[in-house]
Amino acid sequence: MTDSNGSIDGEAIGRPTNPMVSPLLTDLYQFTMAYAYWKAGKHQERAVFDLFFRRNPFGGEYTIFGGLEECIRFIANFKFTEEEISFLCSVMPTCEDGFFDYLREIDCSDVEVYAISEGSVVFPKVPLMRIEGPVAVVQLLETPFVNLVNYASLVTTNAARHRFVAGKTKHLLEFGLRRAQGPDGGISASRYCYMGGFDATSNVAAGRLFGIPLRGTHSHAFVSSFMSLDEIVNKTLRSYDGSSTCDDFVSLVECWLNKMQRADSLRGTFGDTNQSELAAFTSYALALPNNFLALVDTYDVMRSGVPNFCAVSLALNELGYRAMGIRLDSGDLAYLSIEARKFFCAIEKEFDIPEFGKMNITASNDLNEETIDALNKQGHEVDSFGIGTYLVTCYAQAALGCVFKLVEINNQPRMKLSEDVSKVSIPCKKRCFRLYGREGYPLVDIMTGENEPAPRMGDRILCRHPFNESKRAYVVPQRVEELLKCYWAGGSANKREDLPPVKDIRERCIQQLEQMRPDHMRRLNPTPYKVSVSARLYDFIHFLWLNEAPVGELQ
Amino acid sequence: MTDSNGSIDGEAIGRPTNPMVSPLLTDLYQFTMAYAYWKAGKHQERAVFDLFFRRNPFGGEYTIFGGLEECIRFIANFKFTEEEISFLCSVMPTCEDGFFDYLREIDCSDVEVYAISEGSVVFPKVPLMRIEGPVAVVQLLETPFVNLVNYASLVTTNAARHRFVAGKTKHLLEFGLRRAQGPDGGISASRYCYMGGFDATSNVAAGRLFGIPLRGTHSHAFVSSFMSLDEIVNKTLRSYDGSSTCDDFVSLVECWLNKMQRADSLRGTFGDTNQSELAAFTSYALALPNNFLALVDTYDVMRSGVPNFCAVSLALNELGYRAMGIRLDSGDLAYLSIEARKFFCAIEKEFDIPEFGKMNITASNDLNEETIDALNKQGHEVDSFGIGTYLVTCYAQAALGCVFKLVEINNQPRMKLSEDVSKVSIPCKKRCFRLYGREGYPLVDIMTGENEPAPRMGDRILCRHPFNESKRAYVVPQRVEELLKCYWAGGSANKREDLPPVKDIRERCIQQLEQMRPDHMRRLNPTPYKVSVSARLYDFIHFLWLNEAPVGELQ
Repeated sequence: MTDSNGSIDGEAIGRPTNPMVSPLLTDLYQFTMAYAYWKAGKHQERAVFDLFFRRNPFGGEYTIFGGLEECIRFIANFKFTEEEISFLCSVMPTCEDGFFDYLREIDCSDVEVYAISEGSVVFPKVPLMRIEGPVAVVQLLETPFVNLVNYASLVTTNAARHRFVAGKTKHLLEFGLRRAQGPDGGISASRYCYMGGFDATSNVAAGRLFGIPLRGTHSHAFVSSFMSLDEIVNKTLRSYDGSSTCDDFVSLVECWLNKMQRADSLRGTFGDTNQSELAAFTSYALALPNNFLALVDTYDVMRSGVPNFCAVSLALNELGYRAMGIRLDSGDLAYLSIEARKFFCAIEKEFDIPEFGKMNITASNDLNEETIDALNKQGHEVDSFGIGTYLVTCYAQAALGCVFKLVEINNQPRMKLSEDVSKVSIPCKKRCFRLYGREGYPLVDIMTGENEPAPRMGDRILCRHPFNESKRAYVVPQRVEELLKCYWAGGSANKREDLPPVKDIRERCIQQLEQMRPDHMRRLNPTPYKVSVSARLYDFIHFLWLNEAPVGELQ
Repeated sequence: MTDSNGSIDGEAIGRPTNPMVSPLLTDLYQFTMAYAYWKAGKHQERAVFDLFFRRNPFGGEYTIFGGLEECIRFIANFKFTEEEISFLCSVMPTCEDGFFDYLREIDCSDVEVYAISEGSVVFPKVPLMRIEGPVAVVQLLETPFVNLVNYASLVTTNAARHRFVAGKTKHLLEFGLRRAQGPDGGISASRYCYMGGFDATSNVAAGRLFGIPLRGTHSHAFVSSFMSLDEIVNKTLRSYDGSSTCDDFVSLVECWLNKMQRADSLRGTFGDTNQSELAAFTSYALALPNNFLALVDTYDVMRSGVPNFCAVSLALNELGYRAMGIRLDSGDLAYLSIEARKFFCAIEKEFDIPEFGKMNITASNDLNEETIDALNKQGHEVDSFGIGTYLVTCYAQAALGCVFKLVEINNQPRMKLSEDVSKVSIPCKKRCFRLYGREGYPLVDIMTGENEPAPRMGDRILCRHPFNESKRAYVVPQRVEELLKCYWAGGSANKREDLPPVKDIRERCIQQLEQMRPDHMRRLNPTPYKVSVSARLYDFIHFLWLNEAPVGELQ
């Protein structure tokens, strides 16, 4: 099962998760350029491209890198079918036949991919991936790579930010399938939200593909579909330990509701509860007595939903089962969760049911970073958050602007100039390092030319801002981590890093986030993490800049 | 090729476009509910669900319905595989075997789907689809249907809004693949942007699947990959009519550049142009002389890119070819397009090249509704807009809140109450009509009970706001259109509407938008289009509301 654990099985890397991922999944201009390279005899020139982004999303100062495994699977299977070739012939009718013969031949056996490990905390300008190979082939990879990394990194980062604001102890559930960009958008969302620190998803297909824990109970429609307790025909329920059978669970529930209504400590908090809701809860408990979690806001949370839930839970308790909890999907979640908690505690005390007060409360109505933060400030009793729309659509910022820039061709460094300094790319085939300080925090990322000596533990090194002459600092790293590792070396599997299962990437992500200095992570005015270049690379960038700028426009 | 034209071939409807679309593509709670229905013996009860949305997106007053064909393909292929069943067994270990036998059996032969035609202009509260069938089966369809309709309708609407602001005469190109939510997000984006009125896409895979015209030229990397004209080895180019061959196209280009530099009318506008750019343009023209469209902003638009482009175009012109135009991807697009246009006109005059001044100008830098509107207000000379990020991510509003609500079960009308009136659903199995006025504009949509007489042309009918007693109006329709048509009648193909190809849906969409009264369409403070219920349905809703509300809370 390559799909469910993501590991490389000997030489073979499985098909991409999404079988629609074909080499045609690219922009037309990659083919017109490939043709122009081919016509000019340049198509085999060895090119180096960097894939990077320019700004952290969501007003934060960090990003999580996601999508690497999908990129590697893509190139491992990069080969045109005859049907794809014929389609391209029809789209580019003036191109010579020799070009299509060339396309028939190509694969990624001459391509190398160096990348930061998936699930790492990453920063602007530092290449997430460095892709080397024949210029025409690597150019064809641009669009799919950027497509596969952009949303993956964005939504992983969004998930990590939700985890940060919710805190470590809360359960985070991804409920976004219905709001994602189509089926595969939903599957990607579930995969990368889990990677970013969520605990479970509602998406069954994603659960199967990636081994993500699944969660879910019932909807309002389920509650509305019942009219009364009379509808329940089979009323028997075996006790949890199998030692006895209750012949009329419905009466047991009604009996507990009566006891509650008569209890001094609960008197006056509710009157007659909604009977179709009670029927729905009772039916659900009869079907899934070990997983009784009820949506309590179809009619009125405190006057109907919570009392009905407690009656069913107490009946279950009498048979040795333990109810799971409630879900709130509307209203004032802070207030309702606190009121529900009080009610559960009152039940615990009134009927002497240990732990009943600790019943799980899940909240799930249009939640996002801001609403969770607001709930935290108000005080609440929510244990689990079910988050959908704002998480999977990355509503607060729906795109990460990853780019794919040529930095070297035929051993000649290239740089993309722009009047906007933030858009200037850093030339050369580079190595990238993360330097750690005495307290174990990462201090700075540094890019160097390929052939420079690597920074060494304990040795002072000058780190320069790539474009601002006055910004520079000497750093003595206590630890040096090389960021770009080989994930694809043509056909050879020997030199390659493993592709770990999603679960392991999730662990890496959580661990890396914990390692960050807190001021980079805070939601309000976080401190930017510094990204630098070596002194030699700095000088070279500025030498090239002068030479590439058009005459009369030395910037 | 069912995929490319979307038509039904006799009885058979092809597989969904995306093979990942399996019956597992749903929320877990649909299965836990299905199990609870099954345990309660309710799973066969006939239920009616409405799929609708509550608010138009993007601050507008209309939405375009997309995603219907994908829903119909989904149900046409709705069947669990043994592998899927085993996965479900592992996820729901306490469920009885009989339930999985039931799942093995089910398909959608007992389901009926009535829907508004895809590509129609639609409004809040009116069901886009009405789905009837055994409650457990239809419940399993909720998540995939909402998933397939939500993003499709949202991005189609976004595309239509971009078309509206750009105007009918501009060419609109969708360039969003790299910013979409993964591969399938990109493919959906291309499909539905075309449906909403775009002219072409850069996405080759979408072009193949749906027959969408493809567009694309080259990137900055292509320009940066060249160093000088010396790199160009094969310099020969046959003339357009094949009658002659130019042995040194490079010299011809240089010769034209010289002529331009010496021309009185152009003197002083540019000096030495960038030679790697000139080499890139020349190479591109040698490869694709019929499709020469150059990206002119790698170095400096007016001092290098446009003059280099014109030199190559004039050389092509001498051989009988006609250049396509330029693309601007940065800077002040209004200003640059106007300057480029002046330059083209000067070339037309100076060298007497008819139509040269009409050269196509494409703009493509982070465009959206607002920036196009701003360009229009400033004045510009752009002919084509290439739009990516803001279009496909629906950045301005990343989600449409489609819902799927139970409105009837076992012939009993059901309604979802809420303290928030906008969230109350309209009960009953309904029919929906669009009433047209004298000028041909749609006046109002009206929902009626299933068995009420349909509104008739020329007959006065009372249209009531569903929840606001004081809002009511008599309407005498000049034309009545029934909105919900049968798109799936179990196994029978006889009663079904056709699923037209994407191109035809696009035509319907454009035509429907043109038919709308202009005040509903304007960007600033558009007039809401009215959605109403019949007097009988109004009375029934309010009767039910009183009866369903919990005691002590008559709302």
